[in-house]
Amino acid sequence: VKWITLSLLAVATLTGIIAFTAPASGHADEGGAPVFVTNIPSGYRDWRLVSVAHEAGNLNDIRAILGNDPAINAYRGGKLPFPDGAIIARIAWNYVASEENNKVFGRAQSFVAGPPPEWYLQFMVKDSKKYAATGGWGFAQFDRDGKPADETKLKSCFPCHVPVKARDFVFTRYTP
Amino acid sequence: VKWITLSLLAVATLTGIIAFTAPASGHADEGGAPVFVTNIPSGYRDWRLVSVAHEAGNLNDIRAILGNDPAINAYRGGKLPFPDGAIIARIAWNYVASEENNKVFGRAQSFVAGPPPEWYLQFMVKDSKKYAATGGWGFAQFDRDGKPADETKLKSCFPCHVPVKARDFVFTRYTP
Repeated sequence: VKWITLSLLAVATLTGIIAFTAPASGHADEGGAPVFVTNIPSGYRDWRLVSVAHEAGNLNDIRAILGNDPAINAYRGGKLPFPDGAIIARIAWNYVASEENNKVFGRAQSFVAGPPPEWYLQFMVKDSKKYAATGGWGFAQFDRDGKPADETKLKSCFPCHVPVKARDFVFTRYTP
Repeated sequence: VKWITLSLLAVATLTGIIAFTAPASGHADEGGAPVFVTNIPSGYRDWRLVSVAHEAGNLNDIRAILGNDPAINAYRGGKLPFPDGAIIARIAWNYVASEENNKVFGRAQSFVAGPPPEWYLQFMVKDSKKYAATGGWGFAQFDRDGKPADETKLKSCFPCHVPVKARDFVFTRYTP
């Protein structure tokens, strides 16, 4: 029994190690699958603001785009490409009318950030070597429970960003 | 000539001192005029995000609400009233359709932050003694050139905030 337990432990540990290191070691240039970001970058909610936007249509969200220090510094300095280590976060909230605000304004004009939509969080993580196959950016998307999107979904990120290659594949402009 | 120069200097200096100290010393409870904030709080663009909103109608802006550390800590801790020293900033940008984004999405759905509107910046500064007459909040508004709003305009701020007295006169809720 003891031997079986130890073996199972060893297998479990090894599996854990493989699972943990796979995203870091699976370089795109090794002929493997594209590499994506599977952990939520820590502290992102404290990052500084890049800008805000509203996506109507099916998304129907209002969103904030935040950047970590390397990202904000690159934005403010107007320097492209973004340096390795730069991370851009996109937080989306359901786009909801504020009855409370409208009552004060005396007309229906106010829309605010409501509960998180299914695809609550997105990130672009710059690592020019690791993510060489996708413009140096690793893409990530997490649902409101923190679960990462699957590979099929993440593969659809980069092609959409190609039209803004001249801005290092980043849509959002910094607004002072 | 020397005497005149010195007198003018003295008057100018005295005027400067009065102008400089007036906002700080003019407590509302001294029976004077309401006290407003006339300087843009430094570093506000680096503050953390409270939430985002879109005001349609005449304002037609998209906006970010930021808070300094005491404000963000109070928001996150769910503690009201906000402590003295808390400052909440509202930055507005013209609400503009993004042709660039719409082209990628294949439909007209994307609205982004454009140039600053006339009344670009607003602040609420908490000082329960200094601003006792207006719920403990000093109100400030600056145009895109950094010029503060006049007293008549600022007097219209507080009455609008009274309906949200239960949230310490602050409209915007923190969105995680």
